[in-house]
Amino acid sequence: MHKIQVNVGASVTEANRRQADENRELLDAHGIRAIDILGAVGSGKTMLIERLTPLLKARGYRVGAIVGDCYGDDDYQRIHALDIPTENLNTGTECHLDAHMVHHALHRLPLDGIDVLLVENVGNMVCPTDFPVGSHRRVVIVSVTEGDDVVNKHPAMFRECEIGIINKVDLAEAVGASVERMEKDMRRHNSRITILKTNLRKGTGIEELADILLK
Amino acid sequence: MHKIQVNVGASVTEANRRQADENRELLDAHGIRAIDILGAVGSGKTMLIERLTPLLKARGYRVGAIVGDCYGDDDYQRIHALDIPTENLNTGTECHLDAHMVHHALHRLPLDGIDVLLVENVGNMVCPTDFPVGSHRRVVIVSVTEGDDVVNKHPAMFRECEIGIINKVDLAEAVGASVERMEKDMRRHNSRITILKTNLRKGTGIEELADILLK
Repeated sequence: MHKIQVNVGASVTEANRRQADENRELLDAHGIRAIDILGAVGSGKTMLIERLTPLLKARGYRVGAIVGDCYGDDDYQRIHALDIPTENLNTGTECHLDAHMVHHALHRLPLDGIDVLLVENVGNMVCPTDFPVGSHRRVVIVSVTEGDDVVNKHPAMFRECEIGIINKVDLAEAVGASVERMEKDMRRHNSRITILKTNLRKGTGIEELADILLK
Repeated sequence: MHKIQVNVGASVTEANRRQADENRELLDAHGIRAIDILGAVGSGKTMLIERLTPLLKARGYRVGAIVGDCYGDDDYQRIHALDIPTENLNTGTECHLDAHMVHHALHRLPLDGIDVLLVENVGNMVCPTDFPVGSHRRVVIVSVTEGDDVVNKHPAMFRECEIGIINKVDLAEAVGASVERMEKDMRRHNSRITILKTNLRKGTGIEELADILLK
């Protein structure tokens, strides 16, 4: 819920950045690499964690997760089932995680037993952009079923993220979406973005993503 | 962008409600029925307007539209092509329309030449909920490709809307979504909600929706 935009806005995002820096220091002190996963509801954020976790485990990394949602524990239950330390953050009417919420979740996690922390942000293509949580990488995932104009509509999101995933590419024809347009729009918003095409249900593209995230 | 939640929050949403009431009075004075269409990016809001408009025209109604997006004119161009009076509202980093923006758009539209006004809100399942714009009906559209837990995750949205549309039902099997769960969750959040299942690409369910909206 976006109640108001007032002059203190700048200091609120600034305060968030300070807390994010503190989170980063805490993560670094424990040798943890944190990945913030952004994208709309249904884009594939949870499934990305479901696919990535066994792969990372197989490569010898200990994985943990923080799962953000307005309400409920649908995603949390799925991630918890992966048998990794997981914290659920319900934001209520808030439409994004912030560094302060993540700070509290970090202090509830067994940080010395985690190498890679996957943070699933709230499903929203606008609001999380301005609230970094202290992660080392921000990944945005969009699905072709959101329409091939979804990238053009959200420049700030793609400027903010280092990695852009186009998911459900197998459904592009069924929904009449041009993956090429989505790629082109991503590069237009952010010439340095790394783009990956995935079909997470089948696991396509996930090995390559793991390589990039661990680089 | 959600910068801050402070004590003035209540008065901001209250001010929005007052402006929404004024918009409603203006609409009523011109005999216009306004429908606010809510839902995530890619859920089918624009296509709903594309399918509904010719049908309403064929039934003798004059249609107008207001199209909200953070950025760009992708949706505007599609609606404008329907040859109806259309206003584009770019919200920038804002994640919802508000009654004040809609007020300005109303004053740019030829109100005496419109019977039904379709308002496409910004693609977002959280933030628009608290900002009614003065419409007579609020419709939420979700797609099965967003995952069948999307309804459970957004109780406020479904409590707020009188009509819930489940779109892209033809893709339910391909994405492993249970339409039944989505229906059940809608009724749990809002026992009075009217539920429609559509495949808007094919036009399935659109006649029924027109009947309900014009009732």
